[in-house]
Amino acid sequence: MKSDIQIAQEAEQRPIKEIASKLNIDELQYEPYGRNKAKLPLNLIDEEKVKKSNLVLVTAITPTPAGEGKTTTSIGLSMGLNRVGKNAIVVIREPSLGPVFGIKGGAAGGGYSQVIPMEEINLHFTGDMAAVEKAHNLLVALVDNILQFKNDQFEIDPRTITLKRVMDMNDRALRNIVIGLGGTTQGVPRETGFNITAASEVMAILCLATDLEDLKKRLGNMLIGYTFDGDPVFARDINAHGAMATLLKEAIKPNLVQTLEGTPAIIHGGPFANIAQGTNTVLATKMGMSLADYTITEAGFASELGAEKFFDIKCKSGGLEPVAVVIVATIRALKYHGGAKLADLANEDIEALQKGFANLDKHIENIQHFGYQPVIGINQFATDSEKEIALLEEYCEKKGVKVALNSSWEKGGEGAEDLVQKVIEAAESYKNTFKFLYNNEFSFKEKIEAIATKMYGAKGVEYSLKARKNLEQYEKLGVDLNVCIAKTQKSLSDDAKLKGRPTDFIITIRDVEIASGAGFIIPIAGSIMRMPGLPKVPSAEKIDIDVEGNISGLF
Amino acid sequence: MKSDIQIAQEAEQRPIKEIASKLNIDELQYEPYGRNKAKLPLNLIDEEKVKKSNLVLVTAITPTPAGEGKTTTSIGLSMGLNRVGKNAIVVIREPSLGPVFGIKGGAAGGGYSQVIPMEEINLHFTGDMAAVEKAHNLLVALVDNILQFKNDQFEIDPRTITLKRVMDMNDRALRNIVIGLGGTTQGVPRETGFNITAASEVMAILCLATDLEDLKKRLGNMLIGYTFDGDPVFARDINAHGAMATLLKEAIKPNLVQTLEGTPAIIHGGPFANIAQGTNTVLATKMGMSLADYTITEAGFASELGAEKFFDIKCKSGGLEPVAVVIVATIRALKYHGGAKLADLANEDIEALQKGFANLDKHIENIQHFGYQPVIGINQFATDSEKEIALLEEYCEKKGVKVALNSSWEKGGEGAEDLVQKVIEAAESYKNTFKFLYNNEFSFKEKIEAIATKMYGAKGVEYSLKARKNLEQYEKLGVDLNVCIAKTQKSLSDDAKLKGRPTDFIITIRDVEIASGAGFIIPIAGSIMRMPGLPKVPSAEKIDIDVEGNISGLF
Repeated sequence: MKSDIQIAQEAEQRPIKEIASKLNIDELQYEPYGRNKAKLPLNLIDEEKVKKSNLVLVTAITPTPAGEGKTTTSIGLSMGLNRVGKNAIVVIREPSLGPVFGIKGGAAGGGYSQVIPMEEINLHFTGDMAAVEKAHNLLVALVDNILQFKNDQFEIDPRTITLKRVMDMNDRALRNIVIGLGGTTQGVPRETGFNITAASEVMAILCLATDLEDLKKRLGNMLIGYTFDGDPVFARDINAHGAMATLLKEAIKPNLVQTLEGTPAIIHGGPFANIAQGTNTVLATKMGMSLADYTITEAGFASELGAEKFFDIKCKSGGLEPVAVVIVATIRALKYHGGAKLADLANEDIEALQKGFANLDKHIENIQHFGYQPVIGINQFATDSEKEIALLEEYCEKKGVKVALNSSWEKGGEGAEDLVQKVIEAAESYKNTFKFLYNNEFSFKEKIEAIATKMYGAKGVEYSLKARKNLEQYEKLGVDLNVCIAKTQKSLSDDAKLKGRPTDFIITIRDVEIASGAGFIIPIAGSIMRMPGLPKVPSAEKIDIDVEGNISGLF
Repeated sequence: MKSDIQIAQEAEQRPIKEIASKLNIDELQYEPYGRNKAKLPLNLIDEEKVKKSNLVLVTAITPTPAGEGKTTTSIGLSMGLNRVGKNAIVVIREPSLGPVFGIKGGAAGGGYSQVIPMEEINLHFTGDMAAVEKAHNLLVALVDNILQFKNDQFEIDPRTITLKRVMDMNDRALRNIVIGLGGTTQGVPRETGFNITAASEVMAILCLATDLEDLKKRLGNMLIGYTFDGDPVFARDINAHGAMATLLKEAIKPNLVQTLEGTPAIIHGGPFANIAQGTNTVLATKMGMSLADYTITEAGFASELGAEKFFDIKCKSGGLEPVAVVIVATIRALKYHGGAKLADLANEDIEALQKGFANLDKHIENIQHFGYQPVIGINQFATDSEKEIALLEEYCEKKGVKVALNSSWEKGGEGAEDLVQKVIEAAESYKNTFKFLYNNEFSFKEKIEAIATKMYGAKGVEYSLKARKNLEQYEKLGVDLNVCIAKTQKSLSDDAKLKGRPTDFIITIRDVEIASGAGFIIPIAGSIMRMPGLPKVPSAEKIDIDVEGNISGLF
């Protein structure tokens, strides 16, 4: 069997001009990045077309460590829709170098449902991630420079600075650090740390901004810390937002690439869904909707993370409303949730599968909370037995939800034929039933509890002393903020070990960070870290390039 | 008077296709980055053409804080050569965001001798700087991951790790830090710090590599630290170099842009000349020489820094030999060295000017040490009096060195007419007189002392205990390494306050770093830092972007 990178390297790449012309975009309207990538100008967004276009969200059940194929399904679905004469586009997130060099690998789909150029997409791409990182770190450098030279003007209490630096790297040793050591010319010593760039507030802002003006305003609203008198200090107070927005001048433009079948694909913004808001940019989604009748998009990890944030943060902020929701399920993951071991997932195990249905149930309920009847997309693996597949299909039908077997990993758009039909049916019968999970009037704790009980299935929420104090302080800001919980993706609960559908558990909020420019607080549940670490054997040790420039080990 | 950014924004930008076609490069050979930038493939380098092409180095006298216009002169000279029918190209370094947001501003020339698109060149450009940063930091993350998980295999003594992380930012608070705090899951605590990306060893390697294979080999040769038994550990020992080279796949390709007059310009690699080796990449220079009869290149700051490193490191490593050397001098800087105050440099001051000639003398001698008779290019300012200019011209003529008044800042290529003639004369009469300053057989101390006495004019060198110990340790590696001294650019000495031509001083080497992959040691003289800090009022606070995307405050 060919690896993802082999398939991608052997693929015919159409000139980006040809992809753009499919969307009626003239050569002079976009900016090429190499021969097969381009940046699209924001004036191609057409709010009238956005209102009429069909937005489809792809989410998933609780994943195994390998992921269940949301991106693969999204890409396959977009290609399948084009095959039946629909004008469809896929809009997904940009990969982060952290997972690429860590354990998960790239994020450009898999098998015959990939976006290309796979290598460039996974490495640097058009530089957006780097621009976000620079804009974020410039703000923090300006803050430390104030402490060094002119804190008499600003009176920032160094102990209250909540903003960390960011780096697009899995680097646990940077989580907790002390900076500014070495004497009076070397800065003011203080405790701080790094988050991964995907969890940067600037990334969140880029993903929610509606234009350059809104971007700059949001950057200016980033909370830095407090004065010695307890007054909040924002990025605008130290004149950082203009230079930050300048650094994001190109990064704000969505990126156009292609799928293996030449379907247009937009890739833009890359926040993780466990430790950040987990969806591509509002601008990219609107760009897709301006250019196509069907826009397929995804939100990271399972429904309680990516989908919840997609609806309650992205749709609310961007005024978006999907017409259909797909839940990606795999026989493998269901067996895993039913108690089968990772090493045994290739073996038929009816009992484990049936036990695992409980996890699927919860994700169906979660999507129903938002007013949708989901379509279950079974991402087929060669190791799935016919009996297992039949059982899952039967189970879904009994529950009254549409189900489709999807083999687009193996067959590309053709493999998504059944899923395409079910999605069209769902979209055409959608009746504006979308609703948010919580109201803006809720207190922070009410919002957190709504998510924890309705989405995670928790019986309650406990807060550390630090979390309570932070919530009190953030409430004093008097700004309406959403809630973007950081939680493990490995379980519906905040305990990675609890598979299936855990019940009778408490969510522990150990800390709360804030992203006031992005417009949310970030309660941190359990032991999740906003700077991941590398595994014992990182992918980086296996990635290589030969003298001709051919890359291997990237998957 | 128009600002640099106004002139750049008003300029007619030719499509990159047109610039490439001037060099006989077909549209299918390069990769476009936007409509006015491109990456050139390495197979365009032709070693036979490199041998025949005329390489001209532009260096300078000791600068004022604003810089004396080496890049402006290089660009003007290339445009002027084209005006008289020579096929010329300019090859310069990529700007770093540190100075852009700090005090110096951009590095794309000035007035009517600029490279464009000025804003993109100064901000992110084609992503090379970010790629260097990621490759470097990936190595350090892999090292800290070994300490966390598998140091039983490697036995790296954490206290001996010399490699720091890097960030393209002026951020003094990151110079001395403690990482890995917070308990057993958060890394191994150790002292370390960040250098600016321009001073990264990966940047040095990118600038000296002759192809992708050499790049990877050099990355593998980067010293990480030592085992508990005192054996050196290199990047290749932890399998980091393959992934690092993969990250540099695109960054290794030189970037093509244009000057304001449509002359082709190559911009590639961005090490500073005070704290790093200060010249663009060997590959970019060879690319220029493959494509043009005259290649104008520059080396950072004054002759004792950039030019010394250009000859002794870059030319040695890349097998290059210039045919002429220009020393850029300004009336302003000479008066400054003669005792005039920064605020008074616009006023005629014959006495100060004459005293300042001593600084020029030393830089002429420095270039003569390498076997060249330099051409003095007077970078003209509106405030220079006729009397001052006449005096300087007369002084140079008396010394028997060619001198030319150059007004290319004001007039573009036309303003370089006289300089062009002098450079052609020098090039055509060049007789392979080039020689290095020191032999490979010299000990580290002999190499350092050759540079300190012959280039800086010092009477001797003193070493701190730490510097001595490091030198002893590096000698044990048994590798032939050049010397790349980090020293202030503000003085010929290591004391920024000593203007003019200091004499009777001692150079103090307080520390020595190593870049074994790049092929040199880095003795650190005086109090210079390899991570700069922001000034009290950083440029960043004045840089802004409006709703239409127009940038202001970038200069």
